[in-house]
Amino acid sequence: MGLLVQKFGGTSVADADRMRAVADHIARTRRQGSDVVVVVSAMGKTTDELIRLASDVSRSQPGRELDMLLSAGERVSMALLCMALSDLGIPAASFTGSQAGILTDAVHTKAKIVEIRPVRIKDAVASGKVAVVAGFQGMSTEREVTTLGRGGSDTTAVALAAALGADACEIYTDVSGVFSADPRIVPDARRISRISFEEMLEIAATGGRVLALRSVEFARRHNVPLHVRSSFTWERGTWIVEEEPGMEQAMVTAITHDTSEAKITVAGVPDQPGIAARLFRALADHAINVDMIVQNTSSNGMTDISFTVPKDDLETSLTISSSLAPEIGAREVSADEGIGRISLIGAGMKTSPGVTAAMFEVLSKESINIEMISTSPIRISCVVRDEAVERSVQILHEAFELS
Amino acid sequence: MGLLVQKFGGTSVADADRMRAVADHIARTRRQGSDVVVVVSAMGKTTDELIRLASDVSRSQPGRELDMLLSAGERVSMALLCMALSDLGIPAASFTGSQAGILTDAVHTKAKIVEIRPVRIKDAVASGKVAVVAGFQGMSTEREVTTLGRGGSDTTAVALAAALGADACEIYTDVSGVFSADPRIVPDARRISRISFEEMLEIAATGGRVLALRSVEFARRHNVPLHVRSSFTWERGTWIVEEEPGMEQAMVTAITHDTSEAKITVAGVPDQPGIAARLFRALADHAINVDMIVQNTSSNGMTDISFTVPKDDLETSLTISSSLAPEIGAREVSADEGIGRISLIGAGMKTSPGVTAAMFEVLSKESINIEMISTSPIRISCVVRDEAVERSVQILHEAFELS
Repeated sequence: MGLLVQKFGGTSVADADRMRAVADHIARTRRQGSDVVVVVSAMGKTTDELIRLASDVSRSQPGRELDMLLSAGERVSMALLCMALSDLGIPAASFTGSQAGILTDAVHTKAKIVEIRPVRIKDAVASGKVAVVAGFQGMSTEREVTTLGRGGSDTTAVALAAALGADACEIYTDVSGVFSADPRIVPDARRISRISFEEMLEIAATGGRVLALRSVEFARRHNVPLHVRSSFTWERGTWIVEEEPGMEQAMVTAITHDTSEAKITVAGVPDQPGIAARLFRALADHAINVDMIVQNTSSNGMTDISFTVPKDDLETSLTISSSLAPEIGAREVSADEGIGRISLIGAGMKTSPGVTAAMFEVLSKESINIEMISTSPIRISCVVRDEAVERSVQILHEAFELS
Repeated sequence: MGLLVQKFGGTSVADADRMRAVADHIARTRRQGSDVVVVVSAMGKTTDELIRLASDVSRSQPGRELDMLLSAGERVSMALLCMALSDLGIPAASFTGSQAGILTDAVHTKAKIVEIRPVRIKDAVASGKVAVVAGFQGMSTEREVTTLGRGGSDTTAVALAAALGADACEIYTDVSGVFSADPRIVPDARRISRISFEEMLEIAATGGRVLALRSVEFARRHNVPLHVRSSFTWERGTWIVEEEPGMEQAMVTAITHDTSEAKITVAGVPDQPGIAARLFRALADHAINVDMIVQNTSSNGMTDISFTVPKDDLETSLTISSSLAPEIGAREVSADEGIGRISLIGAGMKTSPGVTAAMFEVLSKESINIEMISTSPIRISCVVRDEAVERSVQILHEAFELS
């Protein structure tokens, strides 16, 4: 039944037993008639340990050398996986990012894939082998080893699947799919069996941790069907596919939450063209990822601008905003770390204008105050107090009957 | 003062502190005016740990994947060393065996270097950088990752030094040089300050563990001056150089010993041409490294053949010899693991015929029986009981005044 790309994360290959279980599954997939290309992450906490080692040795840690260091992790896991496959009589060969033809730009530690030339992978598959490819790494246009940063291994898998014209890309992880809400907060959250790329993008962007945003975006752009599933239970998980005309469009598919951001308010700025531009240009120049932005209605020619940033960037963002305050005529800059964001996602929202109102009513009934709002055609996000996040997710999950 | 290749073994870079100490030393060498190319092994026991991991996962362990696995070790150490150099303001770049242009044959886990094309290394040095190269690894003519087997990192260093026309190759290790005998047995053994390639070859071949035979052989063939020294004390160690006309030729330079071999005796074979050839061809076909061979004088047309093999190969060797016994008409095949070999090495022996006699007299005076003898122009080796080895080394060291 064609070609499958199977990606196994760090927890899936954390030790010798898990490694052999993964090899068994690959063997099973082959017996069912598929060719298989595998993408594998470093074992368990290997990457974290290598980063710690680097901190022990050095303060400067040049990116080129950090990439050389981190790329060692996948070498170990992919070689071991090939050995486990060999024990099962499955011919296999491992390939580094460079050998697999994964060409990236030259930005060390967060390189972007620019092209894939999977000549050796195709040869290996054609000769009846399972090709096992190192996730997370590539070779730059300057022939240097690079790593792809967060979500890198998923991106390797999706990009390879696209380049090879695979029938699907299976992402094996330690959860059994994408859920209607975080099961730690909503125990009767439902596993979603089928979801569109667009909805999954919104989920990934608003706190869903199953797939990195960039890999979903890549899959959407190249129309690679993704199947997120568990390497512990091997059961059918969640398919992420192109939206089809006949596809059921749930009004609300999932509820996500995120407490990793903080809010900055720049108060009392003149309501004039160019003020906001100056502020957000300065933040962008420092590579700060501003998420939600809300500007109040002007009163007496003055307004307040609030925006959220990752808590890790709060200090830098505050420094930048405060130093700009005199120039843009702001009265005050303040920060608030006690916020959380909850988001409703559903492709059916496009045609159901009542969702926003229903969401506000549910929250209001529980006296949960909404501090910021932002929407897309298929998403509504509200910022609330962080202590109200769990309760908000629970009551919304119930109100929209997602169980 | 030109270009130095400095090689650091696993104990020299075993942890973060050692790594920084090595970086300090490289910085010092640069301040003294030398360009430096560094060859580095995997940290401490890393390679052993990776081998153990492979055993945990797999029984089959294909050579290609074992090489991919083991090559991860040097990636880690070389990247960390470059980071430590960066902290000291020394620009550095790490290179894998493949990036360094170390081309090998395709024999996995014990590849031989066939050519070195150090284009990127030369570029790095020309641009003022310290090039840090992964020892022990290369890329095969089939573009696969290979490892060089035992003594591989020393060989990488010597081969690179030859290819780059370096002024010398410094081998940093956990001992401070080559000694006139093992200091654990002879506490007043003397560190040899200068020794010829030929003598060092004999030392490496007869139990000296400081340098692998193949790296010395490579250095001799390409006339690369070697300097073996300690990365713990940084003091001047032992220079291994081409024999010069004016060089002092000590009658005896060093005494080595080796208890890693066993003796096999094939007794009562017809003293006819071809018998020995058949025996040793069969052993060679099983890649068994036969060392000393002694054949007794014939009596009644029959003779005994004794030879030594590594203890690890004893069982296989016995099986082969026993199964050949009927065919070659041998009466009996026996094994003896209780042997040891002591060797006297000295370039001056060539012109001093009395050394052999003196050695036998010294051993005889202590009632130490000699079971086998073999000689080269600059070496005499005797097999004795293993319990007599230490005492033999001590009394010979004293008798030849090597302290």
